[in-house]
Amino acid sequence: RINGERLWSSLMELAQIGATQKGGVCRLTLTDLDKQGRDLVLGWARDAGMTVTIDKIGNGFMRRAGRNNNLPPIMTGSHIDTQPTGGKFDGNYGVLAGIEVVRTLNDLGIETEAPIEVAFWTNEEGSRFVPVMMGSGVFAKAFTLEHAYAATDTEGKSVKGELERIGYIGTQEPGDHPIGAYFETHIEQGPVLEDNDVTIGVVQGVLGIRWFDCTVTGMEAHAGPTPMALRKDAMQVSARIMQEVVAAALRHAPHGRGTVGMVQVFPNSRNVIPGRVKFSIDLRNSTDALVDQMADEVKAFAAKVAAESGLEVKIELVSSYSAIGFHADCVDAVARAAKKLGYSNMPAVSGAGHDAVYMAKLAPSGMIFIPCKDGISHNEIEDAKPEHITAGCNVLLHAMLERAGT
Amino acid sequence: RINGERLWSSLMELAQIGATQKGGVCRLTLTDLDKQGRDLVLGWARDAGMTVTIDKIGNGFMRRAGRNNNLPPIMTGSHIDTQPTGGKFDGNYGVLAGIEVVRTLNDLGIETEAPIEVAFWTNEEGSRFVPVMMGSGVFAKAFTLEHAYAATDTEGKSVKGELERIGYIGTQEPGDHPIGAYFETHIEQGPVLEDNDVTIGVVQGVLGIRWFDCTVTGMEAHAGPTPMALRKDAMQVSARIMQEVVAAALRHAPHGRGTVGMVQVFPNSRNVIPGRVKFSIDLRNSTDALVDQMADEVKAFAAKVAAESGLEVKIELVSSYSAIGFHADCVDAVARAAKKLGYSNMPAVSGAGHDAVYMAKLAPSGMIFIPCKDGISHNEIEDAKPEHITAGCNVLLHAMLERAGT
Ligand SMILES: NC(=O)NCCC(=O)O
Ligand SMILES: NC(=O)NCCC(=O)O
Repeated sequence: RINGERLWSSLMELAQIGATQKGGVCRLTLTDLDKQGRDLVLGWARDAGMTVTIDKIGNGFMRRAGRNNNLPPIMTGSHIDTQPTGGKFDGNYGVLAGIEVVRTLNDLGIETEAPIEVAFWTNEEGSRFVPVMMGSGVFAKAFTLEHAYAATDTEGKSVKGELERIGYIGTQEPGDHPIGAYFETHIEQGPVLEDNDVTIGVVQGVLGIRWFDCTVTGMEAHAGPTPMALRKDAMQVSARIMQEVVAAALRHAPHGRGTVGMVQVFPNSRNVIPGRVKFSIDLRNSTDALVDQMADEVKAFAAKVAAESGLEVKIELVSSYSAIGFHADCVDAVARAAKKLGYSNMPAVSGAGHDAVYMAKLAPSGMIFIPCKDGISHNEIEDAKPEHITAGCNVLLHAMLERAGT
Repeated sequence: RINGERLWSSLMELAQIGATQKGGVCRLTLTDLDKQGRDLVLGWARDAGMTVTIDKIGNGFMRRAGRNNNLPPIMTGSHIDTQPTGGKFDGNYGVLAGIEVVRTLNDLGIETEAPIEVAFWTNEEGSRFVPVMMGSGVFAKAFTLEHAYAATDTEGKSVKGELERIGYIGTQEPGDHPIGAYFETHIEQGPVLEDNDVTIGVVQGVLGIRWFDCTVTGMEAHAGPTPMALRKDAMQVSARIMQEVVAAALRHAPHGRGTVGMVQVFPNSRNVIPGRVKFSIDLRNSTDALVDQMADEVKAFAAKVAAESGLEVKIELVSSYSAIGFHADCVDAVARAAKKLGYSNMPAVSGAGHDAVYMAKLAPSGMIFIPCKDGISHNEIEDAKPEHITAGCNVLLHAMLERAGT
């Protein structure tokens, strides 16, 4: 069993770097604070006898040798960058749980057959630089190193420049690195485990995601003198499509998700009928077929509404992430570990993207979820219970040991 | 008959002051440009032998004496301030049509029994200082001079300070001024006359207006991991209420109008379920009873949706303008003039507020509408045909002569 107090105290120490007044953390990727966080974590790894390498996109790999170092390592990891108004646990927990696994193996004098590796991936959050899950994406060759390097923040600073500035541009080629299996421990970021009063979510896979922008173009006109019959009200047509986004998700239960999170109205004046509305559509489901079916239904509905109303409706794909089913061996290893340790557990899906999505392209992978308070994350009030933090790490320890061999 | 070319050329000359690249006018109230416009118009009035007074809120009154100057004047007028992206005709037409009426009377050597007065009212548009229809509102004692003086623009400049700065703070007490009758000529700002191919709208009244802000409060959560059943999506609840705004207007045809023009979503991020949405509701109808009925229906629907969804819905009144029925004598005078002159005409309602709304509290009042291109106003592409400009002014001449006596 891992040392829960030590893990908690490391989490709290890391959370000091970029701590916010409301108890959260603001440690954006590739800032000075991110450098401080990286330095702290790598220091802990070295203290635990691990060797450190950094690759060209700034991903950090901390390795504990095994008996047979020709075997590909059993890896765990996550990210230590946060949202601007982020919490203490999102990502950070997955990295420090890995360190705690190694510390525990050291305490108990356990040697593994395969080496153990703990990774932190650069810019998972995507709030400073687009795209999200950048480090793991480059590692899995989902896009090129050059593409990632060229990304700039709102001040025009590039990923490459910032990596150089903080001294975290390594020499290792990303992805040049076979992996035996990958596990990621994470807070659920949703309310399902808490709602079911369950400690461990055995993650089966990650929902496929499609992001669209929908633009409805009507005719700007004065709200007073324009009779209802002569209007081309872009907001009203948008409202119908927005409701269809949810209806499509409900028709494809239980994993269908539909969200309109971002809305811009032009000219956005109280007594002007909106001439144009742009809004985002976020569709998710457990298979690509289902999420594509949802997208087709929303598009067909939008086309029907456009024809009926005479307004123009344009729906453009912004991003697409394939649904991932985790490897049965890893999923089973997590379930077995939870059972053996006596933790209540249930199958879970990840509704959010994680670095594990890209790792699943390279190696058998799995994830371990623990509950977080009210399902809230990406928020300074994000919170998790010490006993759940401990439980998730114990499950990680046992799942990794099963795969690494003792 | 008036001199249509002279009126058109004055309109085009005034439109030079604050002319925009796209052919519109930006002449915000109480700016240096507004001062230039006021100076030009008053110069024309003096050239036409009129006497000028300015009141304490900067309203300008240009008077042509009658045979019996103890009679209250027959007044016409409108405003010369514009929207930031305004056109050449909104307001300006009503003022210059009044000047043209006087020029025509001079040309023809016609003396009237009662004096004739032409007014321009300060800050009708309300885009720089709130509230709209400020000068006529103070004149009609709808609110106090002090309230109007204290209004500030986005740079913190006050109405009083700006009146002093441009030299248009007069000595006359607003409203200290009996009026025999009031007529206002205006572009329709809507598509009905054009749609019916009619030259003159005989305005029966002005719709009552209720402005509300609606705030829907749900729970901000991650769009991925939050199942549909556990959401409190403020955007989806808002979309339902937005549609009811239109449904209520349609149930109370023909004059019911319902518009959601302004929408703000929090936090407005693609993968966050909106926790709060604030939007405006603009309801209008031909009687206060009808517009209040519409408001009651929208509120009842919102309460039902709140109860069903468990989200909080708050609807707050922002402004209210009573419906106005114009005086039968004035309405009939306009109709008779249009008929006598052989112009196609139809009864019309004004969907937008005008200075005439406040004047109707003080004296028998009426309005004359002419078509504008595609019903568009508050836009640099606002346009009207010279023959309609001429026709509206001829109707004004005859209606005023009927009331003033010759
Ligand atoms: N974990 C996480 O917030 N990923 C960002 C992409 C998503 O919206 O799922
Ligand atoms: N004429 C005009 O635009 N008035 C402003 C108030 C309204 O929305 O009716």
